[in-house]
Amino acid sequence: MAQQERAVRTRRAVLEAAATVFADYGYTAATVADILKTAGVTKGALYFHFDSKEALARGVLEVQADQRLPEQEIKLQEMVDIAMSVAHRLRLDPVLRAGARLSADPTGRKHYGSAWPLWVDALTEIVTRAHERGETLSHVVPREVAELVVSAFNGVQLYAQLETDLEDVEYRVSVLLQHLLPSIASPAVLMRLDVAADRGERLIREAAALVPTSV
Amino acid sequence: MAQQERAVRTRRAVLEAAATVFADYGYTAATVADILKTAGVTKGALYFHFDSKEALARGVLEVQADQRLPEQEIKLQEMVDIAMSVAHRLRLDPVLRAGARLSADPTGRKHYGSAWPLWVDALTEIVTRAHERGETLSHVVPREVAELVVSAFNGVQLYAQLETDLEDVEYRVSVLLQHLLPSIASPAVLMRLDVAADRGERLIREAAALVPTSV
Repeated sequence: MAQQERAVRTRRAVLEAAATVFADYGYTAATVADILKTAGVTKGALYFHFDSKEALARGVLEVQADQRLPEQEIKLQEMVDIAMSVAHRLRLDPVLRAGARLSADPTGRKHYGSAWPLWVDALTEIVTRAHERGETLSHVVPREVAELVVSAFNGVQLYAQLETDLEDVEYRVSVLLQHLLPSIASPAVLMRLDVAADRGERLIREAAALVPTSV
Repeated sequence: MAQQERAVRTRRAVLEAAATVFADYGYTAATVADILKTAGVTKGALYFHFDSKEALARGVLEVQADQRLPEQEIKLQEMVDIAMSVAHRLRLDPVLRAGARLSADPTGRKHYGSAWPLWVDALTEIVTRAHERGETLSHVVPREVAELVVSAFNGVQLYAQLETDLEDVEYRVSVLLQHLLPSIASPAVLMRLDVAADRGERLIREAAALVPTSV
């Protein structure tokens, strides 16, 4: 294994460990010692990549939107796909759970920021393109819709996390989209959108089948 | 001033102080000493009403839905009114800000619970009555709508709290309701609903003009 590849793997292992600890304990209660123990790497290796707890939190936030999803003929489907695949992956991936918890922590985010602008920018771009193609109703303001979807999604996932331990998070996000989209998409587009609760799972399965993994 | 009235006032002062401290620092970082200092009451007075930090948090959560609002001819307007008046009062009332923060705290809520069931029950009752009167579209499931509105509202207010210091929270909640209601209300009801951003402010002003306050 090349040295660079090993460094990438170590960095990823540290990020996942940091995410697990942040997701479970929150930023304030988490310690670098906890993260070190969870990661199973040397102190030197960890500090080579991240020189503080703050840098670890920033690192976790930076990789929130890294999952690539297939392009869709209907741009608004891509917005749905981001929401549904994140909903699906929340249960599986501590990085996303940590991203949600860190972003909503009023004390911690003064130090490391938030993942929300990342999501808002990604969705604004998609809704803008959807708008240009005539997929949306004419009154739609792309950034307003993006902020609405990001903030409402976050409320729904938090509710699912705290009330049902994420068991029904995909169903709840699907219900949210079913209620929001009729006032965003034009009727002809609306009826062709797939917002089923298992949409995220199907997308991730397809993506995994296509991309050869190196591990 | 009768002894009982004094006790009620002291209790309220302690609750408001607790809310201010919880809203600013969160449950874990808050101390009873901070609350005591903010309340300006004796230690004995505080402990007469609340025997622990946990009891203070529970006390704050219990009074979340205490604001009485006028009945409306259209029941769905009452759901809108709760959302818009809470949005308006979030900036003014630390009790509501504390309620939101305490309810979303995964560590703390293991000790004191959450205000969400209170809101979900209140909205479920309203939507059930709206449904019986034919105000809603036929597919509407009252509890599902109530949970959706509570969770999405919470995401929107959290976003406004952390991104814009609540400056535009009423506008954002109004946008949320404008997007959700077309898939909840029947068209004839929809066009009679008032979801303007200043709805909450008007309601609270009217309520204040009607009810004589004792202080």
